[in-house]
Amino acid sequence: MKKLIMLYLVSTFGAAVCMARDKVESPVVNADNTVTFNLYMPDADEVVIRGSFIPSKQYLKTEIGTLGKSGKVEMKKEGDVWTYTSATLPSELYTYYFEVDDERMLDPANPDVVRDIADSLSYFVVRNGLADDYITRDVPHGTLRKVWYPSALNGMNRRRMSVYLPNDYDSAPDRRYPVLYLLHGSGGDEDAWEGCGRVVQILDNMIAGNQCVPMIVVMPNGNAELAAAPGSDPRNPDRKPSAMNTGSMLGNIEAVFMKEVVNYVDENFRTIADKAHRAIAGLSLGGLHTLFISLNNPAKFDYVGLFSAQTTNALDDKRISSLQKIGEAWNELKSSIPFIGRGSVDRKISSLTSENLNIYDDVDNKLKSQFSTPPKLYYIAVGEDDFVKKLNDDFRMRLDNGGYKYHYNETSGGHTWENWRKYLVDFLPRIFLLD
Amino acid sequence: MKKLIMLYLVSTFGAAVCMARDKVESPVVNADNTVTFNLYMPDADEVVIRGSFIPSKQYLKTEIGTLGKSGKVEMKKEGDVWTYTSATLPSELYTYYFEVDDERMLDPANPDVVRDIADSLSYFVVRNGLADDYITRDVPHGTLRKVWYPSALNGMNRRRMSVYLPNDYDSAPDRRYPVLYLLHGSGGDEDAWEGCGRVVQILDNMIAGNQCVPMIVVMPNGNAELAAAPGSDPRNPDRKPSAMNTGSMLGNIEAVFMKEVVNYVDENFRTIADKAHRAIAGLSLGGLHTLFISLNNPAKFDYVGLFSAQTTNALDDKRISSLQKIGEAWNELKSSIPFIGRGSVDRKISSLTSENLNIYDDVDNKLKSQFSTPPKLYYIAVGEDDFVKKLNDDFRMRLDNGGYKYHYNETSGGHTWENWRKYLVDFLPRIFLLD
Repeated sequence: MKKLIMLYLVSTFGAAVCMARDKVESPVVNADNTVTFNLYMPDADEVVIRGSFIPSKQYLKTEIGTLGKSGKVEMKKEGDVWTYTSATLPSELYTYYFEVDDERMLDPANPDVVRDIADSLSYFVVRNGLADDYITRDVPHGTLRKVWYPSALNGMNRRRMSVYLPNDYDSAPDRRYPVLYLLHGSGGDEDAWEGCGRVVQILDNMIAGNQCVPMIVVMPNGNAELAAAPGSDPRNPDRKPSAMNTGSMLGNIEAVFMKEVVNYVDENFRTIADKAHRAIAGLSLGGLHTLFISLNNPAKFDYVGLFSAQTTNALDDKRISSLQKIGEAWNELKSSIPFIGRGSVDRKISSLTSENLNIYDDVDNKLKSQFSTPPKLYYIAVGEDDFVKKLNDDFRMRLDNGGYKYHYNETSGGHTWENWRKYLVDFLPRIFLLD
Repeated sequence: MKKLIMLYLVSTFGAAVCMARDKVESPVVNADNTVTFNLYMPDADEVVIRGSFIPSKQYLKTEIGTLGKSGKVEMKKEGDVWTYTSATLPSELYTYYFEVDDERMLDPANPDVVRDIADSLSYFVVRNGLADDYITRDVPHGTLRKVWYPSALNGMNRRRMSVYLPNDYDSAPDRRYPVLYLLHGSGGDEDAWEGCGRVVQILDNMIAGNQCVPMIVVMPNGNAELAAAPGSDPRNPDRKPSAMNTGSMLGNIEAVFMKEVVNYVDENFRTIADKAHRAIAGLSLGGLHTLFISLNNPAKFDYVGLFSAQTTNALDDKRISSLQKIGEAWNELKSSIPFIGRGSVDRKISSLTSENLNIYDDVDNKLKSQFSTPPKLYYIAVGEDDFVKKLNDDFRMRLDNGGYKYHYNETSGGHTWENWRKYLVDFLPRIFLLD
C-alpha cells in the first residue's frame, strides 16, 4: 500500500506550485527576531513595504493629538527578488503589505491574511513575548459561535453576533458565567475582535493560565446599517465595509443594546445575569458606545472599559471647530499618511440617523447617577500618540472634577490594534474578581 | 445633537480613502450581468485577469481526463486604469485575481476575499440564479460553531471542527437532528466548506425553502498533520497550508473517524444517532475518505456522497504508471496552467504515514458487505472535464459489476468549487427523507 502515497504526489494539486510566488519564502522570522520579506517581481520599478512594525515620521500633529502613524521602507532588488530585512522586532502580531509601483498588494507567499474593515492585510507573529497570547497554544479551547439574534433595529429581522464560550461551557452544563460585551470601532463588525483582536486566542490562553476567570465574550455588530459582516447582510449583500459609517454608528445600537443584545444573551446562554457579572468594553467608536450604554444603564455593568474611546460626545460642542480643522488638514495630506488597515472603499456616508441621539444628552447628571453606586472598575486606556488622547484627557478631567474614580492606562503608540489587544489583556484580569 | 454626525465625518478613519485603489470601483456587476473590473495601476506594463469565469483553452488532455482548466485575459489600459468587461455571466460565485507584470494580486478595490488552501482570492456573486443559494438572504439563520474536540490523532490533544446547527437548534431544545459529515479535499481544512463551499448560506437558504430537512453539518479537519486551519495548530502555528500533504491525508482520519468525530458529535449535540440519520460526503480526497469511512463502517451511514472523489485506491495498482506520466507532464507545463485557488506555498511532503493503510484493502469484499444492506443513497458526482472522471468511471464499473445501485450526476466542468457547491445543493434534498 505504500504506493498509494506516490499516487498523490503527482496529483493535479501540484499545478500551481510552479508559480513565481513560490520561488521565495516570505516572511521569514529569523533567529534574532529580525524578519525578512521577499517578493519575486522582476519587472517592478519600485517596491515598498508598509507595515505596522515600521516606525514613521509621517505624523500630523494637531491640537488634539497625533493623527497618523504608519511607516514604509523601500525594498531592495536582488536579481528578480525584492527583499527587506527588518530590525529586531519585539514580540507582536504585525500586519503589512507591499506597494508595487504605487499599488498595494498582499504578500503572495504568505497565506496568513486578516481583514480590517475593508482591507485584507498580510500578517505574521514574532513569538516569545506578549504575542504568545495571540497564537493558538496547546491549551483547552473555547468555542466561537456565529449567532443570529432577533432585532428590529433599522427594520431588520435579525443581526449577527460572535459569541466566545469558555472551554468547559459544554462539559459543565450547570455552570453559569459572567459576560463581557466587547464592541468594535467605526467600520468594524462582529468579526473584528476575532480577526485583528485575536480574542479567541487571548481568552483561551489567559483562562488556561488563570490570568482571568472563564467568561462568555459577546461581540455584536454595532453598525446599524449592516446586519452582519460584509457580504452577509441579506438586504445589501454587496455593501462594502466603510469606516465612514458615522450615521449608522451613532445612537442606534446603544438605544436597543439592553433590550436586544443583553436580553438575548441572558436568555440563550448560561450567564450570571446581574451587574456584578456583566462587563462592557469597546474600542474607538465602540468605546463611545461603551461609555453611553453604561451611562444610560447605570445598574447593569460593574466593569466598563474604554479603549482609545471616541469620548467626543461627552464633551462640549466647541470642539467641533478644531475637528473641522483636522478634516481640512486630512484633505491636504491625502494619501501621504495611509492608516494600515483603516481603509475604506465605500465613502458613502450613511443616511441613517438615529431617533435616539438624546442618549448623548445630560452627561453630567447621568455620570452622577452612574457613580452614586460606582462600577467596580471604570477603565480608560489610550496611547500617547492617539488622536483621541486629548479627548480622553478632557473626559478624565470631567471624571476628576466629579470625584469619580477610574483606572487609567496610558501607553505608547496610537489608534492601533496593537494597543487594543494590549488593553484587552490588561483589562481581563481586572474583571469578575472573586468577592 | 445633529452636529455629532459632522464630528465623525472628519475623523481619522478617512485617512486611507485617498489611496489609489479608491479611485476605481471593482468589480461592477452590470445590469446585463456582464462584469467590469478596474485596476488603477499607471506604471504596469501588462495586467492580466485570471478568473473562474474565463474559459480557457489551456487543457492537458490525458488518458484519465482533462487536468487543467482556468483562463486569463489581458486587461486594457485606459488612462491610468486597467479595465476589462466580461461577457454576460451566468449566476455563480466567481473567484479571480490580477497578474500585474506576471505577479498575482487581489483586486484592491474588492473587500470580498476567500481563502482556498494557501491562496486568498477576490470573489463576487452574479445573482438571480443558482448563486442565490450562496448569498445570505433574509431567512432564519443557523449558527456556525468552531469547536475543538479531544483527539489522540498524530499525538495531538485536540482538533477543530466546524459545526453548522440549524436555526431552531437553540429554540427547540427537545428536537434532535440528522447529521451530515462533510469532508474537504487535499490541502483543505475545517474552514473549506464554510469559505469556498458557502455551506452556511446554502443550508440556511435550502432549509428555509423546504428544499432539505433541518440538519447538523459537521466539517472536521481531515489532515492529520494539522489540528486546525492554518495558523491555529498549536504545535505548528506558522505551518503554511499545502495541497501536497498526501501522507497526512491517507489512512489517518478515516481510521479514527467513528471513534473520535462521530462519537463526539453524538455525545455533544442533539443528533439522531443511527444509520438512517447519518450522511457522509466529501470532495476530492475527502471523497476518498467518504468512500472508505462508509465502506469500513457499513452499518453507520445511510447516505454517501462522492463529489469528484479520488477513487484511486479503489482501483488497481496498474494505474500508477499513467499517473506518473501525468506528473511528468505537469513538470513540463509548469506555470502555464495554474489552478485558481489550488496553489501551494509549502511543497514539503508530509513525512507522516499512517499505520492504518490496510483500511484500503479488500475493497470488493467490503463493498459486498456494505451493499448487503445497501445505503439509501450512494451518490457519485463528477465533471466531464475532471481529471478524476476516468477514476470515477472505473469505480462505477466496479459498482455496476457488483450490481450495486448508486445515483450518478455527471456535470460539465472540472475539479472546481463551482461543481462542489452544485453537488451539495443537488445532494441535500436527497438525504434524510421522511420514511
